Formats: sequence, structure tokens, C-alpha cells
Amino acid sequence: MVTTRWKGNMSFVAETADGKIVPMDVPGTEGATGASPKILLIVGLTGCTGMDTVSILEKMKVTNFGLRIEADYHATDEHPKIYDRIHLRYFFHFEEEPPKDKVNKAVELSQTKYCGVSAMLRKAAEITYEILYE
Amino acid sequence: MVTTRWKGNMSFVAETADGKIVPMDVPGTEGATGASPKILLIVGLTGCTGMDTVSILEKMKVTNFGLRIEADYHATDEHPKIYDRIHLRYFFHFEEEPPKDKVNKAVELSQTKYCGVSAMLRKAAEITYEILYE
Repeated sequence: MVTTRWKGNMSFVAETADGKIVPMDVPGTEGATGASPKILLIVGLTGCTGMDTVSILEKMKVTNFGLRIEADYHATDEHPKIYDRIHLRYFFHFEEEPPKDKVNKAVELSQTKYCGVSAMLRKAAEITYEILYE
Repeated sequence: MVTTRWKGNMSFVAETADGKIVPMDVPGTEGATGASPKILLIVGLTGCTGMDTVSILEKMKVTNFGLRIEADYHATDEHPKIYDRIHLRYFFHFEEEPPKDKVNKAVELSQTKYCGVSAMLRKAAEITYEILYE
């Protein structure tokens, strides 16, 4: 269960079943610490596919690398305003030659088979991605 | 844009366009501070509909009250594991007689017209709700 309490103005604080605290605010509110509720969908998408990708690569014995994921998103103009397009950029950093086939496979498996957040959001949004090395 | 960085193990930290920081971890990880990526969808849903409801009630001149939202959710067993059922409980607290018609209308407008998170998740999950007073 998630329990979310209104703290006044547009400030809400959620507590998850395992006791994690997530504050939420309207973007641009002075002194606000929380992200907007809607952007948490994008945040969750990056974390979900990031965790999948790292786990799958670990199973493939690919470990020593860095990963950053950037997400661009487009929202519709009319209410209810939903994200209709999301684009993910996976930036990998390897000290040596990157195992690109394994990386491609890991990201593809996340996007097509494992990432529940992607599977849910894909019903509303077109989700595209690219893999880059830096 | 959202930028999410892998911090080792299953720990990721997202930064939103307006500089808000959201840590993410696998539930049950020792020392973890972040919520799971997938639960952020539920968190975002409660915050989104909470903000709508409070805003709409404010326009209806209904202000002096408390609000807590509880969310139960059910995930599928097969990969990709998605939420297929979500149930929200809106707990309102009024010192005086609650304006139940206005409350019903505000929550309904959020769920049917304004809440983008609800509109997106509803494509994957059945979302139900009830309104309670305490």
C-alpha cells in the first residue's frame, strides 16, 4: 500500500509499503523539494529499465561500466495531459572495447520483456530509445 | 529532460528538468533510501489526483479540510510485471459537515478529465476508487 498525505498548498508526501518517503510538488513552487507526480512516471521508467539492463548485463558477465539514461518526453495539450512520446538515451561508458551486442541485447530484453513500467507506459506513449557510448 | 545515473548495485538517482532529485532502489536493499521505480507510478497517481482534487475543491470554495489517499495495487505474475488493478481510497477530514456532493464531483473530475497519470495508467490497469470521511 502507498499512503499519500496532503501537506498544504500543492505539497503531498507519499510513503511506500517499505517505508520509503517520496515528496511531490508542483514544478516551480518556491521551496518545493518534490518532483511533480507526472514526471515520476518518466523517472520510474528510467530506473526500471536501468535496473533491468544492469541485471541482465551482470548475468552476461558484463560488469565494469557506467550507465546514465536520459529521457525526453512530450505531453499532449488537452486534458488529461498525458505523455504521448518518450525517448530514452542509454549512455554507456566502458574503459575498454564495449560489448555492443550484449548491450543491445540487454536493453532490448528490458524494453520488450522485463520492464513493467515500460510495458504500462507503452500503452499510452510511443517509447523509442537509442544506445550511445561515451 | 530526466537524467538518471547508475550509482552501483541496484541504486539509481534521477534528476528532473527542474533539479529535483529522486533516488531509486530495489525494495529490501539494506541502506536503500529510494523507492522502487515501479511503485513511483502508484506514488505519482496518488499525487496527481490529490493535487487535482484539492485544486478543484479550492475553485469550489472548499478549503479547510485534510486529505490522505491510500492506494492498493495488484501486479501480474508474468514478465513484464505490470499493475493490472489499482484501488484508491480518498480519506477526507472536515471539522464540519462535509460537502459530499462537491467532494464527489472533484474526485470524479480528476479521475475522468484532469489526471494525466490516471489516464495513462488506466490503459494498463483497472483503476477504482472510493471516498471516505474520518
